[in-house]
Amino acid sequence: MPESAHVTEEKTLSESNPFPDSIPERLRAQWNFLIEVDKLKTVLRQSPLAAVERRENDAEHSWHLALMVPVLAEYADEPIDIGRTIQLVVVHDLIEIYAGDTPLYDAEAGRDQEARERAAADRLFPLLPDDQATHFRELWDEFEQRRTPEARFAKAMDRLQPFLLNWMARGGTWQAPGVTADDVRRRKSVIGDASGALWEAASELIAEGERRGWMRPGQG
Amino acid sequence: MPESAHVTEEKTLSESNPFPDSIPERLRAQWNFLIEVDKLKTVLRQSPLAAVERRENDAEHSWHLALMVPVLAEYADEPIDIGRTIQLVVVHDLIEIYAGDTPLYDAEAGRDQEARERAAADRLFPLLPDDQATHFRELWDEFEQRRTPEARFAKAMDRLQPFLLNWMARGGTWQAPGVTADDVRRRKSVIGDASGALWEAASELIAEGERRGWMRPGQG
Repeated sequence: MPESAHVTEEKTLSESNPFPDSIPERLRAQWNFLIEVDKLKTVLRQSPLAAVERRENDAEHSWHLALMVPVLAEYADEPIDIGRTIQLVVVHDLIEIYAGDTPLYDAEAGRDQEARERAAADRLFPLLPDDQATHFRELWDEFEQRRTPEARFAKAMDRLQPFLLNWMARGGTWQAPGVTADDVRRRKSVIGDASGALWEAASELIAEGERRGWMRPGQG
Repeated sequence: MPESAHVTEEKTLSESNPFPDSIPERLRAQWNFLIEVDKLKTVLRQSPLAAVERRENDAEHSWHLALMVPVLAEYADEPIDIGRTIQLVVVHDLIEIYAGDTPLYDAEAGRDQEARERAAADRLFPLLPDDQATHFRELWDEFEQRRTPEARFAKAMDRLQPFLLNWMARGGTWQAPGVTADDVRRRKSVIGDASGALWEAASELIAEGERRGWMRPGQG
């Protein structure tokens, strides 16, 4: 089965109400892309909001990370370019408008995640003019591959944010079936690839969450 | 009446479930702030989403602007620092967690908007450690005062984004009571302070929207 078979083929949003031909072609492509990504606001994550009782969507999550970067950048173990790191988090979940959200503790959905997401990227970014399609695809690849200090810090934020929301929910997805404190520790340890201080603090929260019974106990 | 009387005094979100004392004090203040701003996801705007039938919230809107900045930066009439401009849009609506959203075409709510928003800023940013409280307040002031090319471009994105959503909705808030094409033109002309090309394209859309009856005709 070709990878693209994972991705539902449907019209882009702006095809239902195209921008007029009087708009220059390049700008029209950019606006079409910017309208298409409106779908990110409809992709639900598992994380519970702290402010009201409902699940978070990907656009809200991405904004939250974009604010966390400048607030927490001082804890990065390697120097990071804040503006570039924010761009990585703003872009990192875009492919989920076609590939959907893959819950962190869902091993089954995790199996074909990479193929689904790559097919989604192949479909989404080419909506942009060629030079920008390449540029934004590179940003997404950089995030995924964690090759740079910026990408490692962006990934750390991506793991830390739902972690703080789970604390506020006194459990949240920590209480997904079969998940133990050891699983949480293992999945969250990438925070330590970017920041020893943040990983130490996160480890404190895991230990405290375990003590309070907000996640199933681990072995240590 | 003191300005602060406009702002409801209530507990911060994290006070309901404080982070443990084992987390260093500075980091705890930063996490408390990052949890408090979760409220931005509950502040509804007037704009209709393009992807589904519901109104947009401020966090979704802020994320959308953060993506528009790098996609449309090439149209800025003055050179802009993309990373800094994104920081401005990520921060620009934070004060609405206390001050609420003020619809663009609501003259009455517009009257005390500045005082309400300043009081909200005085309450929100000091949740952060002093140095960061000052830094993020300055970012917000910069956006509001449009003193820099980055702030002018950020403001242009803030006006352009709901404008594109209104196009997709074949009217949206353009159809608010009493609003004419001239009002839209007047309110959107700040786009031209940052980009002649984007203002020209927006003017084309206004003219086309007027022709199609999606807004009340203006005088020209």
